[in-house]
Amino acid sequence: MPADSVTPYSVEGDVDYEKLLARFGAEALTREQRQRFPDQPLVRRGLFYAGRDVDDFLASEPQSVVTGVGPSGPMHLGHAMVFYFAKRLQDAFGARVYVPVSDDEKYAFKDQTPTETTEYLRENLRDLLAVGFDPALTRIVVDTEDADVVYPLATAFGTDVTHSTLEAVYGTPSNVGQAFYPAVQTAHLLLPQLVHGEHATLVPIAVDQDPHVRVSRDVASKARYPVRKPGALLMQFLPSLGGPGKMSSSEGVAIRLTDDAETVREKIRTHAFTGGRASVEEHREHGGDPDVDVPFQYLSAFFEPDDRELARIERAYRSGELLSGELKDLAADRIAEFLADHQRRRAAIPDVRAELAAYRLTEDERERARAAVGFQRP
Amino acid sequence: MPADSVTPYSVEGDVDYEKLLARFGAEALTREQRQRFPDQPLVRRGLFYAGRDVDDFLASEPQSVVTGVGPSGPMHLGHAMVFYFAKRLQDAFGARVYVPVSDDEKYAFKDQTPTETTEYLRENLRDLLAVGFDPALTRIVVDTEDADVVYPLATAFGTDVTHSTLEAVYGTPSNVGQAFYPAVQTAHLLLPQLVHGEHATLVPIAVDQDPHVRVSRDVASKARYPVRKPGALLMQFLPSLGGPGKMSSSEGVAIRLTDDAETVREKIRTHAFTGGRASVEEHREHGGDPDVDVPFQYLSAFFEPDDRELARIERAYRSGELLSGELKDLAADRIAEFLADHQRRRAAIPDVRAELAAYRLTEDERERARAAVGFQRP
Repeated sequence: MPADSVTPYSVEGDVDYEKLLARFGAEALTREQRQRFPDQPLVRRGLFYAGRDVDDFLASEPQSVVTGVGPSGPMHLGHAMVFYFAKRLQDAFGARVYVPVSDDEKYAFKDQTPTETTEYLRENLRDLLAVGFDPALTRIVVDTEDADVVYPLATAFGTDVTHSTLEAVYGTPSNVGQAFYPAVQTAHLLLPQLVHGEHATLVPIAVDQDPHVRVSRDVASKARYPVRKPGALLMQFLPSLGGPGKMSSSEGVAIRLTDDAETVREKIRTHAFTGGRASVEEHREHGGDPDVDVPFQYLSAFFEPDDRELARIERAYRSGELLSGELKDLAADRIAEFLADHQRRRAAIPDVRAELAAYRLTEDERERARAAVGFQRP
Repeated sequence: MPADSVTPYSVEGDVDYEKLLARFGAEALTREQRQRFPDQPLVRRGLFYAGRDVDDFLASEPQSVVTGVGPSGPMHLGHAMVFYFAKRLQDAFGARVYVPVSDDEKYAFKDQTPTETTEYLRENLRDLLAVGFDPALTRIVVDTEDADVVYPLATAFGTDVTHSTLEAVYGTPSNVGQAFYPAVQTAHLLLPQLVHGEHATLVPIAVDQDPHVRVSRDVASKARYPVRKPGALLMQFLPSLGGPGKMSSSEGVAIRLTDDAETVREKIRTHAFTGGRASVEEHREHGGDPDVDVPFQYLSAFFEPDDRELARIERAYRSGELLSGELKDLAADRIAEFLADHQRRRAAIPDVRAELAAYRLTEDERERARAAVGFQRP
């Protein structure tokens, strides 16, 4: 086993992102590609660092973005960043956004009760609606609630996901739900093309989820269906508050989308890993290290969009002028501002189910997707 | 590998039915059990020869019978016998009959195009409707069309079907659809209890399909859901026309439910394996052997309900009085009579889809089944 082990189900050790590209067969984003994306910190500052078929996506009309969530807990900052990035692509390009919500995965992989899944699902849907996607261009698909589409598609694709591919990509599954899930993921990623015809799809995704994309590309390449291989935009892990590693809602302390300003400040003050020195005197003399400082990483990744302001913060921190506690508070303020906007929209949704209706696949879209893989009511 | 290998996917060699019971852990039907079933040749004459939890079924109120079909070709006599048996249980006991139609399985296991599956599905549904089940007590569930129920249930049960169970019962799957299918089968077999509350379920099934029942019993025994283990009524194989072995629509010549009298006669005359002698003289002198004679087996299994008439035929054949050709014609007549009735009802269905509506799960039933395994719309 390599020193770093990265699969969809675990991330261990320090991650060598360049090595992952070689191992997975993806390509680093070029400067020219970055510039063709709508301006956004995640792309500009490089948290999105690599991709597959990115040029195809940038040149395509129409374009679709697929980015999902599994209801395994409250949504945290890492989720929000990707969803708001997808909204940015929608606003700038008119891209369709498909959001698969994989409650089924939680049965196969998590020791989570149906009641918990139901609760997380409701809260996750509320967060998704609060992002403010355009309902005309956005579809939210809940695997078990939209099983009339998801299951026939997964059934069709399941034939092309061999057991040996499964073993090679994911290892031996524990149960048959785990075995089938890659076919469901493939259904998610090919769905926009089945509904709207062949076009370029981009999947902005943390690098550990890339195997799902590779499986769907493998299925698409068999040319049974009128689809292109989904492209990917691969993201480095946003560090967890406590330091390097993947931010996860299920371990450690994460900032939730429902945290108020006070809670954000408290979590960052108490838990954030900093690049500061042991004492104020030492910090003033030698300066801090923004490269390992988690509050700075959050600002850089997403929450301080102004390059000049970010550079000013970085200089002040390196010089020792800005203390760790001050940097923490600065990051907390920016994050709390972002969350306040999100929470305002979140609170303005009186009825999640009623609001969701505008984001669900229409009967016609369902019929087209099923027909595209050969299911027609005789 | 034993001389006879019996799995849901292949039957090879001569089958020792007693040995199968020991291997699978089922029990031979007792005379008393046979007598408690409504009188029907399949039970009385022993093609149904063993079972699991049969007493529980016979004593239960309500009772459900689950018997499915996979649209891999036109339906043949073997299918009809089991469906008409289920109707007999419905007429006599008021049993609910659930008929899962597993079009999804054909994607995972068959090299069959979606167009073929759609065509077979339509014809199979027409045959099912022609049986004349009571729509108030009968539900026909097509896996991909009723995926809003089947997929959530299979998702819930998939957690409890471990990969090691899968390997032990079925061997290594070729693709992930095959891996998941036992969870779908479990959904079929537990569905009546999820809709109507805990009660006894009987699965009349060819002995090679017993592993599906065993997997569902294993899931039921984990006591996560309010269900009893499904019972089984195990059937010996009806020989194919050409002789011993499983009758299958996909190999050899089978009598289809749409064959007219002339075709039935022609198929039996041309293809039926007989217990007759090489010449008429020899036959007159030594007599025929009904034990290996396929036309006689068909009469005995199902198509000659009158015991005295069957005994008369057997005596006449053994004595040499009845020739093979005469026995063939006699069987052909009985089968053609049966099929004429079936085909009359079949032809009287103007619109399969319209007719099917009365046999589909209601919204309320769907909701109850999903809720029973924990899926509720938040």
